[in-house]
Parts: sequence; structure tokens; C-alpha cells
Amino acid sequence: MSTAQAGLTLGGLLREHARSRPQRLAAVDGALRFTYPELDARVDRLAGALGREAVGPGDRVLWLGQNSFRVLELLLASARVGAMFCPANWRQSPEELAFVIDDLDAKVVVWQEAEIGDGVAAARGLARDAGRWVRHDTDAVDGYEHFLGPAWSAVSEREPAVDPASAVLLIYTAAFAGRPNAAMLSHTACLSQGIVYGGFTGTTADDVYLNSGPMFHLGTLMHTLATFVAGGTNVFVPRVDAELLCRTIEAERCTGAFLVGPMFDQILDVNAGGAYDLSSLRSAPGRPAWDAMVGPDTSAWAASPGGYGQTEAVGMMTFNCLAVGAAGTHGRPSPLVELRIVDDDDREVPAGEVGEITARGCTVMNGYWNRSDENAFRQRGGWHHTNDLGRRETDGSISFVGPKTRMIKSAAENIYPAEVEACIARHPAVAECAVIGVPDDTWVQSVKAIVVVRAGHTVSADDVIEHCRANIASYKKPRLVEFVDALPRSGFFVDYDTLDARHGGGNYPGGRTRSA
Amino acid sequence: MSTAQAGLTLGGLLREHARSRPQRLAAVDGALRFTYPELDARVDRLAGALGREAVGPGDRVLWLGQNSFRVLELLLASARVGAMFCPANWRQSPEELAFVIDDLDAKVVVWQEAEIGDGVAAARGLARDAGRWVRHDTDAVDGYEHFLGPAWSAVSEREPAVDPASAVLLIYTAAFAGRPNAAMLSHTACLSQGIVYGGFTGTTADDVYLNSGPMFHLGTLMHTLATFVAGGTNVFVPRVDAELLCRTIEAERCTGAFLVGPMFDQILDVNAGGAYDLSSLRSAPGRPAWDAMVGPDTSAWAASPGGYGQTEAVGMMTFNCLAVGAAGTHGRPSPLVELRIVDDDDREVPAGEVGEITARGCTVMNGYWNRSDENAFRQRGGWHHTNDLGRRETDGSISFVGPKTRMIKSAAENIYPAEVEACIARHPAVAECAVIGVPDDTWVQSVKAIVVVRAGHTVSADDVIEHCRANIASYKKPRLVEFVDALPRSGFFVDYDTLDARHGGGNYPGGRTRSA
Repeated sequence: MSTAQAGLTLGGLLREHARSRPQRLAAVDGALRFTYPELDARVDRLAGALGREAVGPGDRVLWLGQNSFRVLELLLASARVGAMFCPANWRQSPEELAFVIDDLDAKVVVWQEAEIGDGVAAARGLARDAGRWVRHDTDAVDGYEHFLGPAWSAVSEREPAVDPASAVLLIYTAAFAGRPNAAMLSHTACLSQGIVYGGFTGTTADDVYLNSGPMFHLGTLMHTLATFVAGGTNVFVPRVDAELLCRTIEAERCTGAFLVGPMFDQILDVNAGGAYDLSSLRSAPGRPAWDAMVGPDTSAWAASPGGYGQTEAVGMMTFNCLAVGAAGTHGRPSPLVELRIVDDDDREVPAGEVGEITARGCTVMNGYWNRSDENAFRQRGGWHHTNDLGRRETDGSISFVGPKTRMIKSAAENIYPAEVEACIARHPAVAECAVIGVPDDTWVQSVKAIVVVRAGHTVSADDVIEHCRANIASYKKPRLVEFVDALPRSGFFVDYDTLDARHGGGNYPGGRTRSA
Repeated sequence: MSTAQAGLTLGGLLREHARSRPQRLAAVDGALRFTYPELDARVDRLAGALGREAVGPGDRVLWLGQNSFRVLELLLASARVGAMFCPANWRQSPEELAFVIDDLDAKVVVWQEAEIGDGVAAARGLARDAGRWVRHDTDAVDGYEHFLGPAWSAVSEREPAVDPASAVLLIYTAAFAGRPNAAMLSHTACLSQGIVYGGFTGTTADDVYLNSGPMFHLGTLMHTLATFVAGGTNVFVPRVDAELLCRTIEAERCTGAFLVGPMFDQILDVNAGGAYDLSSLRSAPGRPAWDAMVGPDTSAWAASPGGYGQTEAVGMMTFNCLAVGAAGTHGRPSPLVELRIVDDDDREVPAGEVGEITARGCTVMNGYWNRSDENAFRQRGGWHHTNDLGRRETDGSISFVGPKTRMIKSAAENIYPAEVEACIARHPAVAECAVIGVPDDTWVQSVKAIVVVRAGHTVSADDVIEHCRANIASYKKPRLVEFVDALPRSGFFVDYDTLDARHGGGNYPGGRTRSA
């Protein structure tokens, strides 16, 4: 696309930042610091290096490493040559990683030796091992910095024409058929979400974002992109370590960071004596000890965080801050997205009824990489079918109900685990819980609750069942309750597949995306 | 476009608002009030009526009337059938209006009898008078409400597929060759600008915008669009009348309005006794009497309003709020826009040097309607050439210098009227001024200042010249000064063509976009 009215590409926006913010820091990683013009120049060199490996439009570049400024750099260089960049989950087993390596068939793989080299080597041994492998954490001649090569002589006029609607970021997700699929996200999708999410979170060029969550997840990347779009500074740390985070926040005056539950506690522990000045952080988790340590966050997002999102749409599709006080639990759609709740025949269902959430808009993925049948099915009729169930409330707001694949069928009734889980979680003796369906010859499935008891409390199975009977429709109450010490998790999320395997779950009517 | 990842159209966003905000008022016009579902249903009817007139993709719909909710309704209905809608400047002479009517060749013209009917009739008499003419301000059978016809039976699945990159809004501007040209603005351009401008101005679904400026200007329309994008309420008044504005602001609890200089005074006069409660308005003009009457505006835009913009890019291309404290007078580029300052050979000039401002990005027009040669020239190399001069400061911020066509050449020196005007305006005895170039056989042109003296002050031509010699480079000082009672204006802007005609201006080296 070379028309004046084409949308920006990631490479084009970087070029503009280099012009508009010549003194602003773009990336910080330990002792390495790059202004926007410096990052732009490195991205040009890297784009030249990719070009020498014949990486062009539609080709893939794979990252097998922890967080690094090179994730952003490789994304932007891939963008500049029209290629797609995938930061893969290095926490996967060698077999899982080998599947990703083979599935992507990348022309260039950039990998890390420190801490994760054994796993990467094992995966490489299992995979077909095509493409050029470049180790990023070495200064040797076969390493990344040598790979970069000399300055690229291209000026912007000679840049390859890149279509902003083409895919630039690949994120593996949606392992609904036992293997993950890589959502292909376009330049327009990434930049538009950066603008909208950045707007709600109040992200500006003055912001300094600490990339302390995994960069193979949109949870972190949404904010990385918003910070880049605004012309702010992205700071990278290889892993989550409370001491390192505190030191980095103080040194770089970070205004934001990707922090979840246990990290707050760890940072409070490390900084109990107030050794670190964390006052630059804008953060409002509503915990007094934390709030006393950091600055206030007055953004719309901070007042009403969250919403409903999917990797397949660069994260958030609805925002709670667009529906403050509304009936729905998950806000209203982003201004970039149209959203409809439909039945199995793709007819819109009336407000108040549960159906599949479908969406269209410029943040929706271009499809999964290398999954043409799945894509045709998931995007039938010009709408992205999320495989998630939701409800439009009568005030127009949205409630996410749960994954379609985990809907429980008991006799003729549909039961949504999230609703039962929310009820059980309100019991004072329950720390956390998950609800699955177990096969039942008479009723298709029965509801089973897996419960973690709060320390110092006791609760019986009958107590849990009675609590549900008193608070939700009787047919939704669990027939079976098991107690465990902890729920199995994959990253931050409950791992329902493992729960099913351990506790006899199965027979879900929507258990596969389609019957084929 | 029927892919799930296509951007939204104006028609699609209206559909989403009808689902997401079923109780929210979309439009208020006197006693008429429409929620989003009601507006959506009317737009469907209107789209059906346009379809019966064979209005389809690329066809034009013309509005010849004052402000009305029907401007928004016609824009949205044109959007839904893929057509282009043009709200024309009804203040033009019949000859000028006839040019627009012939140039557009609209299939449907919606016109107004009250107050402006004579001018419209005269223009119609001069024009070829093709298309179906519909009077909007009558309940008769040949009027707009009858034209609407019955409910359209279409559901969203059956809507025509409209490309969001296609033009939907036409605004006449840029009469640089003696006749105006209609900038063709796409769905994506309008919606993206609505998101970004709406973000900086803090526009939300709770906002109620009073369309009190002309809707044939982007100055008003940018905010109309931002309000629509956010799902807020647009309120329409046919003309500027301080009493009517006060009554409407109080009745509808308007949070914003298009107000410029004299209107503030008129409203202060009308409301001197505090008869109207205007506290719903968010407005911060920094005038104590005004600020005491209205609520505070805490948005980034209010703290640093303005920037550089053009109708050709749905208004703002740079925002001052992105460059607070920077060297440039006109901010930094919108995240939707790349901007380069180039010489006559389209080479980027170094920071600090003046050149033509060029831009690309999704808010840039698709070109002027029916001007293929001009478009090819103005969008050469894939960049929109603004015909304006500007400078990139060393901190990356932007200064708008003035229209390229009005650059004055004196010997070998380029002189930018805005710079000389800013200097003269700082003289305490000067109320306002404008600078033109007059032909000079020896020096190509000489600088001439046209000055309005501040009431109660006196100043001589020599005083003005001396003031300039003391404050700017001597070659920029006026050789000639004339005093007038008032500067000629076209709308809110100084009419330099009239100034040239009255005061002997001419011989501008960039006086035509191109030499042909």
C-alpha cells in the first residue's frame, strides 16, 4: 500500500516516532538504552539482516526466549519487511515447542541459551529444524548483534510497501483441538488497539512501561503496544523477580508494570522497609499498603478495569469502563468492534439470552496461521466466532458467560460453570473453586465442584450444595463436590483440561469447536 | 468488505450503538428526540428511500440547509448504502452553490425553504438541476418525512457490503484555483479521527454535544463525529442565537458546544442575570466570568487545545496536547498520521527548515471528488501534499508556518505572512492585522501589512515598520502599511483573496498549486 490514505504500519509509526520524538527513550533493557531514532536505526539494520535471509511478506520470524527489548525490535523489523513475528511460550514442553517450530516454519529463529537453552535444544532436536537459528544472548560472531550487520542504507522512500491490513504478530492460543493455533494480528489491529486501550488507560508519551509479564501473552503485549503507539518507553526484564522489579521501577521511574496477585505480595515483602521509591507507578489495586507506596491512577480503566477479550482480537473487545453501573459483567464493545450474540444458526438472540459471542472490526485477527478450514468455519458470514458464550443485557451491556466448549448440559438445561463458580466463591469458607461437568448416563452431565477451602475454615460438600441451592436455580447446583489443596493452573488461568482428567470431567456438548 | 477483520463503517457503528446503548439519546433537534435504536430505524428507512432513488456506492447525496439532525441522519443513511454525503455551505452565493450542485451531480438533494429558500432556488435555477430534490422542512407529501417511507425490512445480514475505506463524507474546501474542491473522507477516516480527537477531548457516551457551529465545517463535525463514535448525544440548532443556545444547553444539559469569540460575549450578555443554568458545559476558555458559569474541562485538549489540521484529513493532523512545552507551535502528529516536511523535490528537509507539510495515514482524504489530475499531483509518492508550509523543530515538534500559496518572495528571501503577522499583532496599538505580498518589479514582491488599530489607540505606518525591524529579521518587515476598519473574513477566517484584490496583492511564487 503506498496510497496516502493507507493506515500506518508498525514500521511507519516507528519512523514517525524517530522524527517526532528524537530525544525520547524507546526501549530500556538492563544497561541498554535506545532512543526512538536509535531503535529505528537498529530496526533498519535488523530488517536488512532479515532481508538477507530472504524474509519477506508473509514469512515468519520466531522468538524463543524470555522478555527482551529484542522482542519489540524483532516485531518492528518483521513489520518493516512485511513478515510475521511470533514470540513463543518458552515455558512449554520440548514437544509442544517442537510443534510450534514445525507449524510456523520460520525462516529465522532467534533463541536464548541462558536458563532455557536445554529446553530449546530439545525442541530443536524434535523439530524439522529448518530456517536460520540465531542466538540472541551472546556476543559471538554467530550471535544476534553480529547478525544485525551494517547500517541499512534504505531511506523511507525505498522501504518495501507493507499493507497495514497484513498480519505482523502471531500469538499461539486456542488449543481447543489439542494443539494451539497462532492468531494472525495485523498492523492495523495492533495499532488501533494500542490507541483505544492506551486511551482508556491514559497512556501517553510520558509513560514508562515495565514489561514484567510474559510477552507471548496479550495481557502484557496490549500495554507494550499502547506504550509504543503513544511514543513512551518500554522497559524489559527477563523474568519476574521482586527485587529486580523494584530496582528497575525505581531506576527507570516506571509508571506501569504487568503485575498480578502474588507479585503484589512479593513486592510488598521486598519493599517492606521502603528501600525502593516506587512512587512513579500509577497503580490502584485498592490495597492500602500498596496504594501508600505508589501514585494514583485516575484513568477510566483504573476505575473500572477489564472487560471481555481474546488473543484473537488483540485482547479487549469490550471494556468495563464503557458500562459503569450497567447490568452486564463485561462492559460494552470497544469503538473498534461490532458484537453480536448468536444462536447455532447464526441468528442474533434477544437481549437476556445466552449465545455465542461473535465480533467484527479491525482488531479481529486475519485468521489462524495455516488453518484454512478452521478459519472459514470461525469467520463464517463475515463474523469472528469467539467460541465463547455471552449475553447481551437489556441495557445493551455484555456479560461473558464462559467458553462454549465448557458449557455443561444437565437434562435439557444449559449450565455455565462461571455462574456456579461465582456463587460458590461467595461462600466465606471457600478460597477458590472450579466447576466441571462429569458424564451422566441419565442427564448427559452432572455438575461437579472442585473446591479449595480457605485456611482456618471448614466446609462440607453438603454446605456447598446448600449454599448454591439457596442462591441460584436448583438445577445449577453441584451434585458432587471434591476438595483439593490447589487448582491446577496454566499460567494464571485454571487448567480445566487437567481438572477434567483428574476429576472425571467430560461429555461436554460443545466440547469441540465443530462436530467434524 | 464482509471479512470479520474489516474496520467498522458508520452504518455498522450505528447498528452497534443501537444494540449497546438501547436507551441512550442519539439526536435531539428541538422537540424531536431519537434514541440510538430509533435513529437506527430511521436511517434504515432513509437508506431504503435512497435505494429507491438508485443511490448506491459512489453516488452523492447533497444537503442544502442549516444544521439539523437530518445532517447526521443523511450521513449515516448514505453510509449504509455506500454513498457519499455532502453538507454544503448554504451561505454561499447562488453562483457558488450552483457550481457545487453541478460539480457533485447528486442523485438526491435535500433542501430547506425556511430562511434560505430564495438562495437555494436561485442556485437551482442556475444549475443543471439533475437528481431528486426533497424539501426537509415540510410535512407535505413531497417532503422529507414522506420521502422516508415505510420501515426497511433489511436486517444487518442483508445490508449492502460497504468498504470502510470508501468515501462517505464530502466537504468542500481548498478553493486554491478559484473554485472549491470536495475532500472525500472515508468511513475509516471519520471513525478513527472520532476515536483520537474524542480521546484527547475526553468525549464519552455521557457527553451531549451542541452542534452550534456550521456542519459544513470540520470544526464542528470533528466533535459531532467524536460524540457519535462515543455513543453520546448530538443536539442540533439551526443557527447561532445566544438565547436559543442558552435555552438548549440548560434543557439538554449539554456538556460541549461549538463556540468562538463573539458567541462567548453574546452568551455572557444573555445570561448576565444567571437566568440559565449552564453548569453542564465543560469549557475552559480562561475567562473568569465564563468559567464561573460552567464546569471545568480537565481533558488534555482543554489544557492545550488546537494543533495543525485540514479538512483534507478530517481536521487535526497534529495535536498541541502531544507537545506540551515543546518548541513547535503546533504540537506533534496524531497517532494516526505520519508527517514529513519536504522540499519542492519531495526530499525531507532537515529539522529547523521550512518546507511543505506532507502526511499519510488513515485520516487522509481519498482525494478530491472529480479532480483526478489534482489528486495525482497532491498525492504523489503516496503522501498527501497539504499545500501548507511547516517546520519540524529539533525536538521533533511541528510548527505550521502558513499556506504555501501565500508565501511571499522578496529578492531571494522567503517570507511567511504568519510570522510577520504574529510580530505586528504584539504591538499594543494593533487590534488585528494581515500581511500580503504586492508585486514589485525589482524584488518580485514587497511585504504589505493591513492593520486594524485598537480602539482608543493610534499608530503610524512607520511605528509598525519600526516595531518589526526591532523584533524580526529586517527583510521580513513590511515596506507598506495600510489601515482599515476591519479585515474581510470568510466565516471565521481572514479572506486573503479579497485583501489581495483590495490592496494590490499578487505575484505569489506558490500562488498556484502547480504551474500548469
